Formats: sequence, C-alpha cells, structure tokens
Amino acid sequence: MGFEVQYRTHTCGELNTDAVGKQVVLAGWINRRRDHGGLIFLDLRDRYGLTQVVCDPERSPEAHKVATELRSEYVVQIKGSVVRRAVENENPNLSTGKIELQAEAIEILNAARTTPFPITDNVQADESLRLKYRYLDLRRPSMRNNILLRHRIVKIMRDYLDERAFVEVETPVLMKSTPEGARDYLVPSRLYEGEFYALPQSPQQLKQLLMVAGLDRYFQIARCFRDEDQRADRQPEFTQLDVEMSFVSEEDVMSLIEDLLITLIEKTTKKRIKQRPFPRLSFDDVMSRYGTDHPDLRFGLPLVEITDLAAAGTFGVFKSALAAQGMVKGIRVPGGGSYTRKEIDELTEFARTLGAKGLVSLAINASGEIKSPLTKFMSAEEVQAIIERLEGQAGDLLLFVADSAKVCNDVLFRLRTKLGERLKLIDPDEMALCWVVDFPLFHYDEEGQRYDAEHNPFSGMDEAHIERLDSDPLHIRARQYDIICNGFEIGGGSVRINTAALQHKVFSLMKMDNEQIQEQFGHMLEAFEYGAPPHGGIALGVDRLVMLFADADSIREVIAFPKTQSAIDLLMGAPSPVEEKQLQELHLLVRHEEKR
Amino acid sequence: MGFEVQYRTHTCGELNTDAVGKQVVLAGWINRRRDHGGLIFLDLRDRYGLTQVVCDPERSPEAHKVATELRSEYVVQIKGSVVRRAVENENPNLSTGKIELQAEAIEILNAARTTPFPITDNVQADESLRLKYRYLDLRRPSMRNNILLRHRIVKIMRDYLDERAFVEVETPVLMKSTPEGARDYLVPSRLYEGEFYALPQSPQQLKQLLMVAGLDRYFQIARCFRDEDQRADRQPEFTQLDVEMSFVSEEDVMSLIEDLLITLIEKTTKKRIKQRPFPRLSFDDVMSRYGTDHPDLRFGLPLVEITDLAAAGTFGVFKSALAAQGMVKGIRVPGGGSYTRKEIDELTEFARTLGAKGLVSLAINASGEIKSPLTKFMSAEEVQAIIERLEGQAGDLLLFVADSAKVCNDVLFRLRTKLGERLKLIDPDEMALCWVVDFPLFHYDEEGQRYDAEHNPFSGMDEAHIERLDSDPLHIRARQYDIICNGFEIGGGSVRINTAALQHKVFSLMKMDNEQIQEQFGHMLEAFEYGAPPHGGIALGVDRLVMLFADADSIREVIAFPKTQSAIDLLMGAPSPVEEKQLQELHLLVRHEEKR
Repeated sequence: MGFEVQYRTHTCGELNTDAVGKQVVLAGWINRRRDHGGLIFLDLRDRYGLTQVVCDPERSPEAHKVATELRSEYVVQIKGSVVRRAVENENPNLSTGKIELQAEAIEILNAARTTPFPITDNVQADESLRLKYRYLDLRRPSMRNNILLRHRIVKIMRDYLDERAFVEVETPVLMKSTPEGARDYLVPSRLYEGEFYALPQSPQQLKQLLMVAGLDRYFQIARCFRDEDQRADRQPEFTQLDVEMSFVSEEDVMSLIEDLLITLIEKTTKKRIKQRPFPRLSFDDVMSRYGTDHPDLRFGLPLVEITDLAAAGTFGVFKSALAAQGMVKGIRVPGGGSYTRKEIDELTEFARTLGAKGLVSLAINASGEIKSPLTKFMSAEEVQAIIERLEGQAGDLLLFVADSAKVCNDVLFRLRTKLGERLKLIDPDEMALCWVVDFPLFHYDEEGQRYDAEHNPFSGMDEAHIERLDSDPLHIRARQYDIICNGFEIGGGSVRINTAALQHKVFSLMKMDNEQIQEQFGHMLEAFEYGAPPHGGIALGVDRLVMLFADADSIREVIAFPKTQSAIDLLMGAPSPVEEKQLQELHLLVRHEEKR
Repeated sequence: MGFEVQYRTHTCGELNTDAVGKQVVLAGWINRRRDHGGLIFLDLRDRYGLTQVVCDPERSPEAHKVATELRSEYVVQIKGSVVRRAVENENPNLSTGKIELQAEAIEILNAARTTPFPITDNVQADESLRLKYRYLDLRRPSMRNNILLRHRIVKIMRDYLDERAFVEVETPVLMKSTPEGARDYLVPSRLYEGEFYALPQSPQQLKQLLMVAGLDRYFQIARCFRDEDQRADRQPEFTQLDVEMSFVSEEDVMSLIEDLLITLIEKTTKKRIKQRPFPRLSFDDVMSRYGTDHPDLRFGLPLVEITDLAAAGTFGVFKSALAAQGMVKGIRVPGGGSYTRKEIDELTEFARTLGAKGLVSLAINASGEIKSPLTKFMSAEEVQAIIERLEGQAGDLLLFVADSAKVCNDVLFRLRTKLGERLKLIDPDEMALCWVVDFPLFHYDEEGQRYDAEHNPFSGMDEAHIERLDSDPLHIRARQYDIICNGFEIGGGSVRINTAALQHKVFSLMKMDNEQIQEQFGHMLEAFEYGAPPHGGIALGVDRLVMLFADADSIREVIAFPKTQSAIDLLMGAPSPVEEKQLQELHLLVRHEEKR
C-alpha cells in the first residue's frame, strides 16, 4: 500500500501559453526526434496531441544524454518547464504550437523496436500487416480519430434515446438457432450432447418480446453475427443500433430516427444534409429511377424506361428483349457525346461484366448530330421520341440496356454510380438521405418454391392488403421502411405483426409446417396471445454509419479489431485448432474431409 | 405512405390535476377491472404508471359495453376526458391518483389469454415458469424496475467515464481460444476445417493492446462468457464494466472507481455508505479477520486466532490440529451464552457440513460462569487468556475451529455470515465497501505442479519483489486490488506487466514452454516490444452490482433474459439440436456417448 507514482501532470495536447513558466511532467511516445544545432528536439505524442520538447545539453546534460538514446515510439516521461516558442517557431497546426517544454529530466519507461510501418497517416502498408499489428495501426491519427468518432456517435445515440425514455436492455448472445435467414454461428453445449446455442443475427425476437413485456421503448447497441461468405464489405460480427417502440406507427419510428440522424450529422461532422425532411420514396419508384432500393441521391442521372418506345422500328436487340418480356431502359450521360469509341467500349465492357449483353449507345454531338445504331432501324421521329424521354441535349450520350428488368436495373444501377463518380457529380461533404417505403412483403423464391419475406417474417402489412394473403401475396405492401444514405442502406425496420393468427399465416406462406412453426417460433406466437401491443422498430448499422461519417473506405477502418474478408483475426490468430480435450467435452469430432 | 395513426396522447403515468378537463387518449394493459355500482373501473397500466378509467353506461354506453368484455392484460386504447377524483377517492400511492379518466371510447387492440401467473409483485410462481414466460414476468413492477435501474446504472457509468475522456471501444466476441483460465465457449469455423473461435472470458488482452495503441483511457460494457458449471449464482454470459488506463498507478484506478461507485450509489439508491474513503485492507488481514478475501464489513464478529494460546493445556482437539501444522481460530457470538444445547448443536452441524470436524464452544453465562470442554484440559488462567483474546463478555458464546488454516477460514467465514444474519447485525440499507490489496501474485497448484496466477497472469508486481521470481515466487506481492461490497467481490484489477521479458518469465513459472507461450500469447509479448506504456485497469461485475443496488436475491433478477442454473434458455428453448446440414458445413460430427 502507498501508491504515490504520478506519471504526468498534463497530457500532450493540453499545454498552451497559460502554462508558460510552469514545471510539468508529460508522458507519451516519441513521435519524432530531430538533432539540430546541438539541441535535440522531441515531439512527444499521446492520444490528446503533440508537445515539442527541447533538450539543451547546456541546461540539462543528463536529460540531453538520455535524449540521445531515444528512438521513435519509445515511451518516456519528461519533466521540464514550459516556455514560449519564438514567434517564428510557432506551429499553428498544434494546440500546443506556441509553447515547448525545456527538458530537465527524461526517464525511459519502455523501449520500442522499429515498427513494421511508420506511425503516420499516409501509410502504404499492406492491410494484412496493419491488421496483424493493429495496436500500431491504431496509433495513426486517422485510425485513432475513427475510434474516437465511433465512441462519440454511439454516445450521442445513447444520450438521445435515454432522454426520450428509451431503456437499453442487454439481450443474450447465446441464443437459439433458427434455420430462417442467414447462416448462424453455432456454439456447442457441453452440458447437452449434440445441442447448440447460436449467436444472434439480431435481437429481433427478443426486442419484440420486450414490447410484449411492456418495456414500451427499447434500444440496444447490439452485436450481431452472420456466418456468411465475406464478399463485399462485411464482417462476421457487426454492431447495430436496435430500436423498438410500442403503440407506434411508421411515422413515429421514422421521425425519431430522422431527427437522431440529423443530430448525429450536425454534432459530429461538417457535412451538409442534402434534403430535409428526408425524401420518402416508394420501392417501385426507386427501382424504376435508380435500379436499386438503396439509391445514391447525391446526384441525378435517373434511369428512364423506354420499353414502349423501343417497340417501334426493327432494332433486333430491343425486339428480342421485348419478346422475352424484358424491358429497355436508358441513362443520359451529360457531356458524353464526345466520348471516344474506346471510352464507350470500356463502358460496354463494364456492363457486360455485370451481365448485360451490351450497351446501345446514342451520341448527340455538339451540333445535334446523332450517332447511334438506332438510326438504322428507327425513324428519325422514333429516335427523337427516345431522346426526348431521356431529355437528351446536344453534347450528351445516351446509353441503353435491353434485357430482363433485373439485368436492366442491376447494370444501369452500377453504371449510374460509375458515371456519377466519373462525371464528378458527387460532393464528398454532402449527405443525401432518404427513406424507401412501400416494399412488397414477399418475393417468390423459385428455388424453394415458396414465398419468402422480403425483409423479415415479422414485418406487418397494410391493413387493406391482409386479404391478399390468400389471393395475391406478391402484391401485399409491407409496413417496412429503409433508410438510405449516399447509396448505402444504413438501416431498416417495420411496424410488426402482433397477432398470433397473422404471424402464423405468414410462416405458412413461407412453407413452414405447423411443427416447424411451433419448434422455431412457438414462443413468439404464444407471446402474442398474452396482450401484445402494436409495435415497430428499426435497426441502424453502426459500422456503416461511422464509416460514412468518417469518410472511410471500409467498415474495417472504423472497427478497432476487425477480421479480414476471409474471417480471420490476424492479430490474435483466430480461428485456431483447439485441444482434443475441449472437443471431447463438447461431444464433437472434426469431420476431416478429403482435400480435393 | 401517409402514416397518421396516433395511439396515445399521454402515458399512463403522466396525467395529473393540470390535465383536468382535457381530452386525452391512453393506451396500455388492463391491470384490473372492477364493476361497482353500475360503473366499470379499469386500471390501465403501461411502463410509466397506472391511470384509473371510469366507464359510465349513462355517459358512454358504447365504451361501457366494450369495457364489459375486457379482462386482465387486454391491450386497449381509451379516449376520454380527465376529471378530478373526489377527495375521498384519491390514491396517494399513484402519481395519477388525484384524477381519473372518464371513458368515451375504448378500442381493444389485442386480447389476452389468462396469464400463467398474476402480474403482481408478490408472485409465488416457480422460477422456471417465470423464465419461460419472461415477457410476462417482466411486466411485474419489481422486475420492470430492476431493468430500468440497470439501464440507469449503466448509463451513469458511461456518462461518468465519457466526461473523464474514456473511450468506449467494442472488442470482438469471436476471439481465440486459450487453455489458460476458465473453460471457453467455442464457435466452430465453417471456412477453416477443425478450427474454432472462442467467446471472450474478458477483453483483458485487447484492452491492454488498446493501451499499447495509445488509446490512453478505455472502457467497455463488455459481454463475457465462461463455460463453467453453474454452481452458485452464475450465468454462462455476464456483463462487466471493463476499464483500462495508461500512465497510472494503483491509486489512479482505485480513486476513479471509488468515486464512480459513490456516484452510482448516491444517484440510484437511498443506501448509506458505511465508510468513506473505502477502507483498504491487505489480503493477509482480511483472511485473518474474516477468513475470506471478500468480507462483509456491514458487521463485526471478527475471527480471532488463538493458535499460540491453544498450545497450552492438554486439549486433544487443539493439540492434534497444532501437530498437523494447523491453527485454532475463534469467533465471539455476542449474547450467545444463553444458546441452548440444540442451538449449539445446529451450529456445529453447520460447521461439519463445511468440512470442520466440529466446533469447540465456550459459553459465559450472565454471571460470568464458564461452560466449555476447555475447562477440563486447561488452567483457569489459560482459559481466561483465550477469553480475553476474543474480548468475551458475560453472556457471550465463543466458538472455535481447530484445523488447517483453509478449513478454519472457510468454516468461520461462513459461520460469521450466518451469525451476522441470525443476530440481525446487517442493515439492509447500508453499503459496506472496501478494497482488498497486497495479494500474493502466485499460488502453488499442487495438481499441476506449477505456480499459477492468483488473479491473472498479466498482473504486475511490486518492483522490489521482482527478484523473488527466481527465489521465492510465493512471496511476491501483486499490484492487484479487489473491490468488495457487502461480502461480494464486485470487481478487481491490477497494474499490469508491460515488458515482454517479465511477462515471459511469469508464463514460464506457470510451466508454459516457449512454444506454448508463443502460440497463445506471442502477440502480447510482441506488442510489449513496440512501446507499451505503464498501464492498469479494473473490471466491475455489472450483474452483481445491479443485484446489490436492487436488493435482489440473484443476478437472474436483474438480467432481462437469463438462463437457468443449468444454462438453459427456457423462453427460446436453447441450446437445441441443429440440422445435419449445419454440422456438415462446420465439419463436425456429434460424438454420441453411451448413456450410462
């Protein structure tokens, strides 16, 4: 007992001209050492900033002697007095830029080997090296700022919801496996041979049960897990802001979340919100105009359908798409009329890799002259009608895809994104948010020969459409809302089903038999019989949100310890083999498959 | 689009005399229905309170008609006007007790079956029924209040730490298995045959790596997992407030946490803190005085060693304990001099079940007369010396155990607790907190023939004791501190090792070879070579803390969805068998053992 050590009196971001003349102690890492005119200059770094330290052999030979040993990333404690820098030596980029510390004593608290990459922002190191040495990567200012921003965003979320009577409830991580939805991560039980827990894909069921419990307003910053192949920017575990409310309609949830998002953007970024209130677009509209249900609204370039006009003339590409119940859809590239053959070929090749048979182009040169294969197969009026539909101007390029609706939309959605970037239509300081609503409740799963929930089987549906459950399930509108930011789906939710009969009917349409329904969702159906209030909610993807706020390229940049795209933790070395004893206790054998 | 439904204008806890005359809409659950004098009275309940509703067939025959159909736990929406209750009908226990709602329209939003137990606090239902219907159990006011209290405690923790520049960082749940410590829950990898992730027992390593990363002050409300047999009040998953700080000594961590705990108690309870600042007791002292390292300081009854005095005389029980290098320790039971033979026998039996061979008693009756087997084998002076050592008074009972130190302490620790309750020495409104420090770094594990870390292998040690690593490991003092409240260890932490050489030495003493050290902890040792600052931290058990604050009997009462003592989720039905396809994808076979 008797713990008197004090490592520092101030942090490295704290001292300014008010402190001049004071004796202080700082501790931190050597960010840089320069030897200049007999003096040694040290930049001492901690999370809070940088302070310049001068070691003068005349004033303190001992401190100077220790300083000669210091190398980058050494951890030191420095005692000294704060002096004002000469005006010409001030550094306006540092909060401590008007002062420096005259070192009187330096103690090396820990030495450091040469780091595998420099601790600076413009690091060229391979991502796998950065992940293996994540504790060094996180020393870089941009990474540190991402982690601090994430903390701040999540803190504001919590404060905002707490002020509005929401209760944060921790739901279990050891849950029950359900074959519905994505693939579960399983956790073998030691006590029950052959039985498993599953990690939650979301706390969906439990948050609904909390509404049945009368908690009224729930939220949680919840860890969720999906064992999916890690194409795209995904992680095996991710974080969502999970919200559920009782006695609400869509409007209540959407206006709450809209206001929360505005608050977050205003408090943590300098970004502008493109449109307030956020536009609300129907699923049909966004699919038609943008070919996707998560459109980037920072720029225009809408897709335009010309299926009706494409029926005219004798152009084979159009004709065969129409014959196969397909469609023809185009996009206008402003100023693209001067693209070279090579540029157009590149775009065509891009479309081909996405599944299109090709692109039909129509260039209008500066003097209004038209260059297009269409002119051979259509009358001038017919071509003109198409140009007018797309609002083509002199100097523009029009590009068309003739195919199934799915291919048209997929290809033109990505082509639009590519053109938006190429034409520099995207303002990086702008946040374009919108709601997408009026989703269909079901789609038809050809492979499984059944209806499947477009979002999740708990989504409610328009009262007036309930009767279509028997007659026309594909035309039931879900009480679903997705929130989109700059082309990313950052969240989604719905007003839920709250009666057992309706919930049972939805499961039946998904081709579950009574036994499966009881086994997997019996507890939900039962809960709905004990007084389930009307309720609805939403989940926002925290990783993606922070990524957008931080202008990061990947969610891995805003997660302290992410896994690779192939689900490996390079720092800890996970997953890894375990001891035979552990497997025995879990009643498991590894099934060694033949290597192919 | 167009979401206009509004289910309520106020909550059921909100209306008071200010609202008299207003038209309002409430929504909630029927808590109780009474038919009285032609009127129907409804208590409408939501999370926020109760509001009395009157249905008068004269004023609104329709509302009255609906009211006749209502039963407990129906979910309804009621429109009406707020009226003042007659003074004699006021209910001072309700925030809404001076008003009632005159119903004008009632809509049944959802019906309810009769619940398996009543939604009231004094419920006699079996715990397994309560867990199966947790969504109903959570409707009971005491359970709801526990969940709300938990939210509030955790919110205050976060606010407190955020204000002090701590950053909350989410660490992964899919981690690497290490054979050290408790048993891991494993998660099989689908992508890597025969490999596994493990759920973290704590974020210990990652929080230390965050210090190496320069994050300076970290915290997390972290979910932790241990696959241990669920004796006592444990859960497979539990929550801790995890804290780590750089450039600190014990004092910094302890004073921060002490102030946080005081803040929490003052803001969320009406409890008194017995002593401030919290006493700091050494491990040796508490083991000696209380027989445990987590003493309940709400009452006295210290244990007193009399090994030296027991050497006198010829009492065989004492003699044989001493001959076996044991000790003799006693406790004074104030007023116990009048206990009957039967009462003393009961205490003796209790001691026997805990492993003692028996209890030696010494009763002093009101007139100072002594009744004890000791009087036959010791002189009056020798007996008197023992009485004086225990500060025995007329009317007291002294009880002794003669055995190994471990048995003496175990038995007297529990006997002391039992006596504290029996003698009603415990004030339920008092919080007695203390720090226990000066722990040994190692104990010797006879079975494994090795030294094992008393707390965890990352704990630092007194500088002056480092040399004992080679000569006398059992007498190294750890820089460890535990925080105890009312006899429960609610947290513990240490100042850590931050150099690779020292850390390696500790692992070696634990009989790990170089390969094991590299395989399991190579990343930690490597990190310590890149400039690891001095650092330390602590973890507080959130479940236990909330339990103590809520005066609950078990942590299951303060967890929204706990598992049973045998690790079963009775609500969801987990663990459960999974489909063969899932096992195949995970390269696993279940090893069906012969049933015995």
